[in-house]
Amino acid sequence: VIEVDNEIITSKDNTIIKLFRKLAASKKERSEKGLFVIEGLRIVSDALEESAPIKNILITQTALTKYPQYIINDKTLIISDLLAEKIAQTDTPQGVFAICEIPKETFSWNPQGKYIVLNELQDLGNAGMIIRTADALGIDGVILCNTCDIFSPKAARSAMGSLFRVKILCENNTENLFALFHSKRIKTYASVVNNQAHSVKENLFNNGCAVFIGNEGNGLSQNVIDHCDFKITIPMYGNAESLNAAMAAGILMWILKA
Amino acid sequence: VIEVDNEIITSKDNTIIKLFRKLAASKKERSEKGLFVIEGLRIVSDALEESAPIKNILITQTALTKYPQYIINDKTLIISDLLAEKIAQTDTPQGVFAICEIPKETFSWNPQGKYIVLNELQDLGNAGMIIRTADALGIDGVILCNTCDIFSPKAARSAMGSLFRVKILCENNTENLFALFHSKRIKTYASVVNNQAHSVKENLFNNGCAVFIGNEGNGLSQNVIDHCDFKITIPMYGNAESLNAAMAAGILMWILKA
Repeated sequence: VIEVDNEIITSKDNTIIKLFRKLAASKKERSEKGLFVIEGLRIVSDALEESAPIKNILITQTALTKYPQYIINDKTLIISDLLAEKIAQTDTPQGVFAICEIPKETFSWNPQGKYIVLNELQDLGNAGMIIRTADALGIDGVILCNTCDIFSPKAARSAMGSLFRVKILCENNTENLFALFHSKRIKTYASVVNNQAHSVKENLFNNGCAVFIGNEGNGLSQNVIDHCDFKITIPMYGNAESLNAAMAAGILMWILKA
Repeated sequence: VIEVDNEIITSKDNTIIKLFRKLAASKKERSEKGLFVIEGLRIVSDALEESAPIKNILITQTALTKYPQYIINDKTLIISDLLAEKIAQTDTPQGVFAICEIPKETFSWNPQGKYIVLNELQDLGNAGMIIRTADALGIDGVILCNTCDIFSPKAARSAMGSLFRVKILCENNTENLFALFHSKRIKTYASVVNNQAHSVKENLFNNGCAVFIGNEGNGLSQNVIDHCDFKITIPMYGNAESLNAAMAAGILMWILKA
């Protein structure tokens, strides 16, 4: 039996619960406070293992009995099951939540590095899945350019602990971004659905490269395509109009690192 | 202006509306009737282009004004916007729905074919995304073995028109399945997260192959792994515990066809 001295929080009006809900709901709140929220056993465990900058852990008494590995310290709040249901974003909440600091940008450039640029991606699940895959495949960095907020609860669920490991840079000005790649001598590749483009099977990715992935519905803008050094395409054998954006990004990252 | 003689259906008690709702909700209903439902402009357009066996199209008058390309015939029902909202599965319904026959299994075996087996996959979005990717990459067939229902509305939304194009076989008895592969001289590959397994970078996929993808949480059962000719793994450079099942399947299908 775990002895818990902490008072059990039951009210939505508790200051930290109010903060949690605001952070879950609003991108503005997240960027102003430099904080975001995560939910679920696996991602919170991952965050702890990675020594991620956790501000508070929120855990139900039920969850605490099931998962006694959680360190109970002055950052831990015990909340009621009813309150957990109210703040949960998933259908079957595990009763484990945290408020974390948005990781500091610790981006580094490697002249032989393989980078991926998410340009105007809209789907939170796709963005999260790309971060997770970038981590698994060892991509050197993910650059976000006018893309949905990867620190929103849905994207974070999909990215899991990879959010704390992948090197992420935000640069919403495409001109600055191309200037940056130029200065780092990193070649830029626009991924397009177009048989006239270079097939990704051509051996084009020997040195430093940054591959641009575009919006789910519209792909990359013509302006971005024109600024890239190469246009590349995944040859489609079948009849599907295109691959899902996250899947295309995953296959491209595999090829970059293969 | 489109002249429509058809009466506008407003009632949930209409026979076809009742059928639609039952098919959307229940796998049992889908398999008994041999029918499933699709929703959205793109997948319904795809179904029409593929001459898929559509039983009924349900369309709102608003949608009909926007998308006049829809063939209005004796299979088309005009429904009210309010009713469309009630039967819709998405947050922003486009007002276009259809009831389709589940495509007949037209599976064919190619001694050099590349097949993928979904074994105990649970996530409908993953299953649909794999079908879509199999279509784009030209996989010869997808075998479903104790996997979630790809004709459920969520999986169908994720698979899109690929549901009408990819060759799909259902075989829930793993013994029969291995006997079938053996008789077709198709080698079987268990995809696992294990550094002791063959790396997918080894050139193992020259002839006919079937790659098994396991459950999202637990992977493949030991029994299935033991029955496969090879154990294969996608080398993880980074620290992510594993790739998402759909992403792993996508990368494997790319390698199979590369």
